[in-house]
Order: sequence, then C-alpha cells, then structure tokens
Amino acid sequence: MSSEKIVTAGLLIIGNEILSGRTQDANLAYLARGLNGIGVRLREVRVIPDIAETIIATVNEMRAKFDYVFTTGGIGPTHDDITSECIARAFGVPWVLDEEAKRRLAAGYANASDLNEARLRMAHIPQGAVLIDNPVSRAPGFQVGNVFVMAGVPSVMQAMFDGIKHRLVGGAPVLSRTVTCGLPEGVLAADLGRLQNRYPDFDIGSYPYYRRGGFGTSLVIRGTDAARLGAAIAELFGMIAALGGEPYEGEPVA
Amino acid sequence: MSSEKIVTAGLLIIGNEILSGRTQDANLAYLARGLNGIGVRLREVRVIPDIAETIIATVNEMRAKFDYVFTTGGIGPTHDDITSECIARAFGVPWVLDEEAKRRLAAGYANASDLNEARLRMAHIPQGAVLIDNPVSRAPGFQVGNVFVMAGVPSVMQAMFDGIKHRLVGGAPVLSRTVTCGLPEGVLAADLGRLQNRYPDFDIGSYPYYRRGGFGTSLVIRGTDAARLGAAIAELFGMIAALGGEPYEGEPVA
Repeated sequence: MSSEKIVTAGLLIIGNEILSGRTQDANLAYLARGLNGIGVRLREVRVIPDIAETIIATVNEMRAKFDYVFTTGGIGPTHDDITSECIARAFGVPWVLDEEAKRRLAAGYANASDLNEARLRMAHIPQGAVLIDNPVSRAPGFQVGNVFVMAGVPSVMQAMFDGIKHRLVGGAPVLSRTVTCGLPEGVLAADLGRLQNRYPDFDIGSYPYYRRGGFGTSLVIRGTDAARLGAAIAELFGMIAALGGEPYEGEPVA
Repeated sequence: MSSEKIVTAGLLIIGNEILSGRTQDANLAYLARGLNGIGVRLREVRVIPDIAETIIATVNEMRAKFDYVFTTGGIGPTHDDITSECIARAFGVPWVLDEEAKRRLAAGYANASDLNEARLRMAHIPQGAVLIDNPVSRAPGFQVGNVFVMAGVPSVMQAMFDGIKHRLVGGAPVLSRTVTCGLPEGVLAADLGRLQNRYPDFDIGSYPYYRRGGFGTSLVIRGTDAARLGAAIAELFGMIAALGGEPYEGEPVA
C-alpha cells in the first residue's frame, strides 16, 4: 500500500453550448484518461456558462482545491470568448498582449489587416502566463499558476493537452482492470462489498449493462499497485465463479 | 423583452466512472434539451466521485442555488451506490424502507429470497421523498424537496426524467435558432458583438467547426421571444451577407 501524495485535478468546462445540450462534451474522457496515465486523479468537473463572475469565482475555488486545474472553451475571438480575461481577473493580474502569441497568429494570415482587433484578443494572456502550443489552429492556450487554459474544440484541446502533459508532476500511474460477467449487481453486491473492504486502497466500481440479448455487470478495480491489483482480480474471478457466474477480463463483449 | 422569473436547474453527475474516463456521460445533453423545452435553464453541471461528504456538501450547495437539482448515478445495490443515503443526510432526514418501492422491486423477482439485503437498499429513500417511476428496470428514483434523484444508466435516466417533467414549473420555453456560414469567427466577431449588444436578452453563441473539406462558424441565438428571435436571425443573415458570406439556417452540412 502506497502512502505517497495523491495528486489531484479539476476540470472546468466553460460554455453555454454544453449547458444547452447543443454540444456533447468530448474533452472530459480524453483528459481523464491522459491524467490516469501520469498518476493525476481527476476529482471534479464543472460545466458553467459564459458569465464572468461565475468563471472567476469557480477558477479561484478550484485552483485552491486541486493541484491542477484545466479549463476548456471560451478562448476564441468572439464576444462570448471571455475565459482569458476572466483568468487574469481571477489571478488579479493585467491581461496583456503577448508578442510571441501575436507572432504566431500573424503567421497564419496572408495580410497584416487580417489580424483584426477581434483576433488580436487571442494574443492577450494574463501577465506572467506561459503559452500552450496550438499545432492545429495556431491561437495558443496558456498556463498561469496551476491553471491550464485550453480550447474547447476537441482536436485543439487534445493537441494542447498532449503538449503540456510533460509539465505535470503526478504520482504512480492509476492502473485499471475490468472484469465482466452475466450476473446482476444484486447477486454480486454483498461479496463485492467485502472485497472492497479487504482492498481499501483500491476503487472498486460496479456498472450494470443492458445490451441486445443480455445483461450483466462490469466490475472495475483501480489502483496503483500492479501486484495487489492482480491479487484482487484473482479474488474477483473466484468470487464470481462461486456465485455461478462466468467471469472474463474486459468490457462486455458486444 | 420578458421580465418573468428565470427558472434554473443544476445537474449533479455522481460517479467515479465518469471521472476516470471509463464512461462517457450521455445524460447532460438529454436533460438540457428536455429542460429547454419547458423553460428551465440548466446553469451548472458538476461531476463528483462516490464520496459521501462530497455528495452531501454538493447537494446542499446546489439545492440552495438553483430552483431544481437533478442527480444521476449511485442508486443501485452495490457498495459504491451511496447517493440515496447521502441525500437523506443532506436533508437531515432518516433513510427508510419504502413499502411501495419494495413492492415494485419484489414484483420483478421469481423468488422472495432474490430480494436480498443489497437489493433491498434500493427500496430505501429519504423519509418524505416521493418515488420516481422506473419503467425500465423497476428500482425507483425519488424526489425530495427540489432534488430529483435518478439512475445513471441513460435509458433509465431518460425514462425517469420523462416521467417527472410534468412536476416541473418552468418559464417560457427557450427557443434556439442556428445560422451557419463559411466565414471564420475572426471576420464575424466585431459585428456579432454589436448584434449581441442590440439583443441583450438573447444568448448569442459562436462555434467554429472544422470538417473535411472546409471550416466555418455556426451562430446560435437563444431566447424566449419568437418574433424578436426572427428579427435577430434576419439581421444575422444580412450581416453575414454584407461580410461576403453565404448564410444558411441550421448546423453545418456534412
């Protein structure tokens, strides 16, 4: 059992389009999996609208609460893109033109006049922030303190996150193994609770599924100690078999 | 411009499986669209882990902040299903066996012994709560105060929400119209900001898209006044045409 520090993260999804149901978020799962791999635990996600006071208050609450905070959305050139200014206000620093960001933006336009006032907003960052590369569409994100500000468009967000992952200092990677069987949760529950009690350092989740032609339960065990994880999985196999089930490793076969 | 009360809602997604990236949430967008139709605005979503203190504190914070709160996840029979007990603790009421819930569960099992201790947990609700029907898999959700507690499995959540929608009192339905064109956001931004200023009661969003063979921007105007919405859309068409674009109503054509 490891006693090392647990490194935590929060994700702040900024955008009316998620809250209205227009757009399905695709960044949460990508970020979560990337963080698992470097031993950072995503502990909370919030989705909030494009309202300055809400953004500022939420960023300040989350950056005090978690080791790392990631934001997505609201860093484009239009009137509803207010994330960048709000981050500066949250940190109490000026929002300033960054010459390197301006250079990167300008390189993408044929004419100097294309870099109009609206687009120049994308070259402004909180004073002291460090740029995050955008290999997809140039306009950079930035890091200030423990807050990483990224685009909302998934292809851009993913490229940005891949580019900054090396800046994060995590703990041991979070390992995850899944066992599936055709038994319902209600049959597994009592023994599963006892298994969880024997492995308090692991997170054991139980997820029923309903598919054409059948139903059953997937059990996910997560933790950092590979050997103990193997032992817990072996116990789980034995437990399911004793209850009359046929366990197999992995998610439900379609 | 309407001065009627804005009715608000928050969604609390409870489950380690969302935060680990194992499971992609599918309930947010369904709930958001359903609420739009009855004039309730989804203002915040939080995703939190299966930790009792976190669930209790978050429910209490959100039920004070919004007219309605919806929760998804954590109402099954296993050790990680702690939402129901936590809601009782958040409201400071006992968590009690509900005979009607027990009857519904029992009706689904061939033998009385199948309704074991773990499954009987699903028949417990906070004292004074009102059941929410589960036409898919029987185990009910419940409403207590302004909090609606639903399953996490999307088919069950959706059936539950459809069943309780009539209990909600909303304002005027939120109407939404979308205009798409091939111009980039940076070209539209200045005029779009002025349009937003002329229609402060509307929420105007700008969303770039990148598809095979092209890119452009979708503009979404949301509000409750159909006539004014029509006027704003007409202005938007004129604005885009004046900038050299070819606007059409709807999302980007594939």
